[in-house]
Amino acid sequence: MKKFFVTLSACLFAAVAVNAQELANWNWAGQQAKTEVTADGVIFRLSAPYATVVKVNPSWTQSVEMTKGEKGVWEAKVALPAPEIYTYSFTVDGVNMSDASNLDLQRDGTRYMSMLIIPGERSAHYDDVVENHGDLHQVWYDSPTLGIERRLFVYTPHGYTDKANAKKKYPVLYLLHGAGGDEDAWSSMGRTCQIMDHLIANGEAEPMLVVMPNGNATQRAAQTLGLPQAQISREQAGQMSYTNSIVKDIVPYIEANYRVYKDKAHRAVAGLSMGGGHTATVSRDFPGTFDYVGVYSGAVGSLKDREGNVNQDTVNKLKAQQKAGYKLYWIACGNTDFLYQQNLEYMKGLDEIGFEYTWFESEGGHTWDNWRMYLDTFAPMLFK
Amino acid sequence: MKKFFVTLSACLFAAVAVNAQELANWNWAGQQAKTEVTADGVIFRLSAPYATVVKVNPSWTQSVEMTKGEKGVWEAKVALPAPEIYTYSFTVDGVNMSDASNLDLQRDGTRYMSMLIIPGERSAHYDDVVENHGDLHQVWYDSPTLGIERRLFVYTPHGYTDKANAKKKYPVLYLLHGAGGDEDAWSSMGRTCQIMDHLIANGEAEPMLVVMPNGNATQRAAQTLGLPQAQISREQAGQMSYTNSIVKDIVPYIEANYRVYKDKAHRAVAGLSMGGGHTATVSRDFPGTFDYVGVYSGAVGSLKDREGNVNQDTVNKLKAQQKAGYKLYWIACGNTDFLYQQNLEYMKGLDEIGFEYTWFESEGGHTWDNWRMYLDTFAPMLFK
Repeated sequence: MKKFFVTLSACLFAAVAVNAQELANWNWAGQQAKTEVTADGVIFRLSAPYATVVKVNPSWTQSVEMTKGEKGVWEAKVALPAPEIYTYSFTVDGVNMSDASNLDLQRDGTRYMSMLIIPGERSAHYDDVVENHGDLHQVWYDSPTLGIERRLFVYTPHGYTDKANAKKKYPVLYLLHGAGGDEDAWSSMGRTCQIMDHLIANGEAEPMLVVMPNGNATQRAAQTLGLPQAQISREQAGQMSYTNSIVKDIVPYIEANYRVYKDKAHRAVAGLSMGGGHTATVSRDFPGTFDYVGVYSGAVGSLKDREGNVNQDTVNKLKAQQKAGYKLYWIACGNTDFLYQQNLEYMKGLDEIGFEYTWFESEGGHTWDNWRMYLDTFAPMLFK
Repeated sequence: MKKFFVTLSACLFAAVAVNAQELANWNWAGQQAKTEVTADGVIFRLSAPYATVVKVNPSWTQSVEMTKGEKGVWEAKVALPAPEIYTYSFTVDGVNMSDASNLDLQRDGTRYMSMLIIPGERSAHYDDVVENHGDLHQVWYDSPTLGIERRLFVYTPHGYTDKANAKKKYPVLYLLHGAGGDEDAWSSMGRTCQIMDHLIANGEAEPMLVVMPNGNATQRAAQTLGLPQAQISREQAGQMSYTNSIVKDIVPYIEANYRVYKDKAHRAVAGLSMGGGHTATVSRDFPGTFDYVGVYSGAVGSLKDREGNVNQDTVNKLKAQQKAGYKLYWIACGNTDFLYQQNLEYMKGLDEIGFEYTWFESEGGHTWDNWRMYLDTFAPMLFK
């Protein structure tokens, strides 16, 4: 299996790479830009004969001014970053644009960015598998808690529709995005389908469903659909009602419509940033619902207020969660994340009440490279 | 229901429109462009203080040079086109780019374009409904005929997952794209989900599934996934094996995995351009399979070769299709379509053998505005 992925990465590398001959004969009129990954760098090229200043903005380093060459083709070589997924854009005479010649366009909230995978061990699970894909369902469910119809995405693993598995039941991971994201975030920027396809094909993770809802209570769905914001009443508003809707609306919808187990041993919840806060909240508000909890760069904090008084309600809920039992409470954060200190304070609070957790400290900050890696690390620990 | 849609269109109009006050105070730094639909035109604005020549390229008219105004904001007003979906891009100092401030980005084959809906009767079914959505499933199936795993999209209508419908079966429309498209084309450029949601909510069309496969036999899925082309053997290659795979692989997959009827009275097939050719081929190669056939701007032609000899194999197959029976054979084409004459010749051939069909001639050419309208017109005639 290892060999298979190495070969796949090599193919990908070959697909991205462009040989010199091809470039020499390249009809720039037919393609606006071309990006080449070499052994020691990434070469960006953009056809812009009438532009005055052209920059490339790679996500892994500072913007670089490109140099105008023959036929008005601008070029810049940037040092090769470590294997991961990166994004980039061009700035042409002050105007920012994605790469019109790169089909791999990612949306992060309200911004589109061109995507680039640098192949290697860390990114081995981020490209598409050639076969044994799971499916992605964009489905609408009623949310009585919020009083609206809403959309969520469901990943079902390869084999789910096989006749041989017609009576097989699956566990479920509920996977929550951060502020500014929506139900599309984990499957696009987060590469959930690719990561799960690889992990399951490798036998590293149990086949499971992954449910990706929309964490902004007033949104019916991603803003790309242009739907009007929902008018949520004051009682319905706030994070509390969204996290309630996870257990009261979403879990029942999934358990009624998919072949899944309906007990805490087969339910996990995880989320990033705001979704990490949602994860902590929903798992303690509904003790006995989730056996696996993953707080990624979570919007969590001290269990005490500014005057140093313990938030007794939260503590009581955590104690109820403790009593109901769970198998894994995994807290992950990068050591340059702006929420790093808050996560340390949160764990201090958990320590004081003897609430068990597993701490996973990584390099880096509040970014998708960490969240993809956290999912890739967390999913193999579930349902075993 | 009519009133509901008028209100919805008005809302959309309001959402697109920007008032003068808002523009005056607009912080251009936070948003690169803003497009305003007024009563008599579309105003495009792009912040590009350092650019020398800026154009806007609307799909409904010629490119227009924009004029530089205060704070480096370029502006152009273009006459309001008839209600429909249009696309546009900007050209900044010779470089083409989509509108980074417009979340509604459409992919047509290998090109991304910014989308603009002009509200009105013709486009009333193209925006998203606020509730009663159907679902969209991106699923992988085995194609023994082509020897690869492939992806297709399935629309399931609102109500499909309702408990009350747990035993209800549905009819199926197989909907095929043109050359250059893929399994994503009909749901993105074609607005299939929006059209079907509106038609079904209005009671104008029967609730049905719509299956959108990938018509390029060497593609496992849309090129956005970056998967290597499949190595299809000579025997497997060509349109013949793809159209075979529709009936031998795709229909059985759908009928095994969804609650659908399994007879010709509940199966329709339709397609545009190359997919119109596929539709004609698959419906006559498998007589008794589809009761409803829709050839949209189809790649069809005379039943005779250049020497004037009748293609007897095709005629025999059409006669078998005739004998097996069908309820509707609908041929639609725009009167400026480059395939218009070919469609007339095809119908002449059908006339000569007494093969019944319905001819729907529209204005316009080989474009998505026609294909959306054809689907919107064809779907209500099915399964009644």
